Amino acid sequence: MYKTLAINAGSSSLKWQLFEMPEEKMLAKGLFERIGLPDSKSTVKFDGDSHERTLDIVDHRQAVLLLMDELIHFRLIHDFREITGIGHRVVAGGEYFKSSTVISPEVLEKLQTLSYLAPLHNPANILGIEAFQRLLPDTLTVAVFDTAFHTTMPEEAFRYPIPTRYYEEFEVRKYGAHGTSHKYVAHEAARVLGKPLEELKLITAHVGNGASITAIENGKSVDTSMGFTPLAGVMMGTRAGDMDASVLPYLLEHDDSLENAQQLIDILNNQSGILGVSELSSDMRDLEAAMERGDKKAILAYRMFVNRLKKYIAEYFGVLNGADALVFTAGIGENDTLVRQDIVKELSWFGMALDPELNIQGANGIISKLDSKVKVLVIPTNEELMIARDVEFFRK
Amino acid sequence: MYKTLAINAGSSSLKWQLFEMPEEKMLAKGLFERIGLPDSKSTVKFDGDSHERTLDIVDHRQAVLLLMDELIHFRLIHDFREITGIGHRVVAGGEYFKSSTVISPEVLEKLQTLSYLAPLHNPANILGIEAFQRLLPDTLTVAVFDTAFHTTMPEEAFRYPIPTRYYEEFEVRKYGAHGTSHKYVAHEAARVLGKPLEELKLITAHVGNGASITAIENGKSVDTSMGFTPLAGVMMGTRAGDMDASVLPYLLEHDDSLENAQQLIDILNNQSGILGVSELSSDMRDLEAAMERGDKKAILAYRMFVNRLKKYIAEYFGVLNGADALVFTAGIGENDTLVRQDIVKELSWFGMALDPELNIQGANGIISKLDSKVKVLVIPTNEELMIARDVEFFRK
Repeated sequence: MYKTLAINAGSSSLKWQLFEMPEEKMLAKGLFERIGLPDSKSTVKFDGDSHERTLDIVDHRQAVLLLMDELIHFRLIHDFREITGIGHRVVAGGEYFKSSTVISPEVLEKLQTLSYLAPLHNPANILGIEAFQRLLPDTLTVAVFDTAFHTTMPEEAFRYPIPTRYYEEFEVRKYGAHGTSHKYVAHEAARVLGKPLEELKLITAHVGNGASITAIENGKSVDTSMGFTPLAGVMMGTRAGDMDASVLPYLLEHDDSLENAQQLIDILNNQSGILGVSELSSDMRDLEAAMERGDKKAILAYRMFVNRLKKYIAEYFGVLNGADALVFTAGIGENDTLVRQDIVKELSWFGMALDPELNIQGANGIISKLDSKVKVLVIPTNEELMIARDVEFFRK
Repeated sequence: MYKTLAINAGSSSLKWQLFEMPEEKMLAKGLFERIGLPDSKSTVKFDGDSHERTLDIVDHRQAVLLLMDELIHFRLIHDFREITGIGHRVVAGGEYFKSSTVISPEVLEKLQTLSYLAPLHNPANILGIEAFQRLLPDTLTVAVFDTAFHTTMPEEAFRYPIPTRYYEEFEVRKYGAHGTSHKYVAHEAARVLGKPLEELKLITAHVGNGASITAIENGKSVDTSMGFTPLAGVMMGTRAGDMDASVLPYLLEHDDSLENAQQLIDILNNQSGILGVSELSSDMRDLEAAMERGDKKAILAYRMFVNRLKKYIAEYFGVLNGADALVFTAGIGENDTLVRQDIVKELSWFGMALDPELNIQGANGIISKLDSKVKVLVIPTNEELMIARDVEFFRK
């Protein structure tokens, strides 16, 4: 019996789950928020209870110390040495890391050089890794990359039609994201469908506040909607998705409140998408409540959101030249019956039909009609379990 | 019998065709190049002959005078008054011009205010209009907009998922382009298919050095691949098409040779696409010759080009929830048998199959097999005839 921690560290947060492996039993999970800010918060959940504390946590190192104290306090472990593996989510692995990798000093150094590809995420992921390494220097530690699953994309899909030197000198290409989630739900979908993953063509739709669509053939990602960064692709909670790049210099010239291109990209990341069009909320639940009140901007935002998802799904039917199944996952994908219903209805020509009784909130498994040529599934994602599994792989 | 001129004025060029209407007979066509530069060139073609002259043409007004002289010299007309209508291509009509419009002083003023939407094209189009108005002030003159056909797009398709004020204050939205061509081939396709356009769902692929794909339902454009500007959409001869906008600030920060966002957009417009990836040529014929020599960059550029076209076509099967026909037009669309073959082959799941004997160079009409569920057509485009027809519409 081994206990494995799956860690997702952000710049001021640290999410964790504790698993008993190889049983894949989730023992507890928790979250540190506002690290480095006053009134930091720690939440620990297990056995149906939630335990919260407000205190000042100065840095990730202190958060990790607190985490260990809490694990002992709540008798989830009795000794630090029970933790036999730690897996860290790392957003950008570039072209270098094609799969999960045991962290060594050399790997950590390489991760630091890749930070320019994900300046908001990788430095925070590294903070988390370093904090654990100081406390548990001898514990097996594995980096699990959001981009690794997409490194199988063919060059025709990952290259941009821009001068070659921007790829060769500056590594500008499509990297994608959410790889751990797309991989997990693809494996689960194959299990539900009772077919080897290698014989399936799947379109996986990870639709949460962030969203990406992936085309999967023989278990491999062959195209995905996010690009060089997670800005590209479908419309999201606060992100614009695909844009005509010409809009940037145009707005820089005409909108006096803009000072540089990065400022506009920040707006496209944080003030656009559902929030920007609805002028109400980035949350689909708020949007649907407003739609029921007849709010026109909310209705438009919803229609645009469904339109972009539908287009990418249709596109990946093209990339795969037909698909066996469409898989929904993540917050909206798992819980929003209306979005699923509208997308599938508007793509009925592709041979998909939902069973309304299966398309309910909390659905799990196949939700299409028996005679639906292309199956539609809901698979709750579990990135943390994938991280724990990848640690387990190296522990053997 | 009426003679109508169709005019396409660029910043240093003026293309023209002379039609006999309503017979729609093209009497002659020609081109002025290097206007305002030393050694300007005039070409006049009719009855299978080409007549070229090199001389200095200082401005568009002089080019128009020369054109009239040449029409008389070659006995294409006997008197200026035989020209009873002039149609001008105008690239950007914004949201204001939803169809072709007779040019009045008010219309000309409005066109000038729209120049910020197409700073390279509209001012040149206006130069052409003004030059003719000075010489033939009483002749019916009509502006035919590249964007007009796409003004039927629903808001969910033309809006970008960015803060609403960028649309309301700065008119940032999808306008599309090549509208005259998409409209023309849609009408021709309906004629070939023997069905009313209003009962058809069509995907039109205008694939030349510039390229755009349009989804057409009931004769109306419901989505198109070009965006706020003609940079967006599929990969083109020198244009990148869709990009992750985050690449702009990233390259501005890392590539010391770049000074501002507009400079990078110019590179994405003029040094990207087939040229940027192949590092050889923007011309598909050069690319295919290099592929036969085994040139790896040419093969990659070709694969990327086909990949982007295929994805947009599949996407528009989604937008239309199925289509009756796919229509190829323009330079590559009309003449490149390999591109057509590869696209249709890689979308066979959609119910398309080419007849290899019909898919020959210079094909015209249906090129799919008899039992192809979705028909595939080649329709040579004729934007100039559409311009002449729109003039004729107002002359009645």
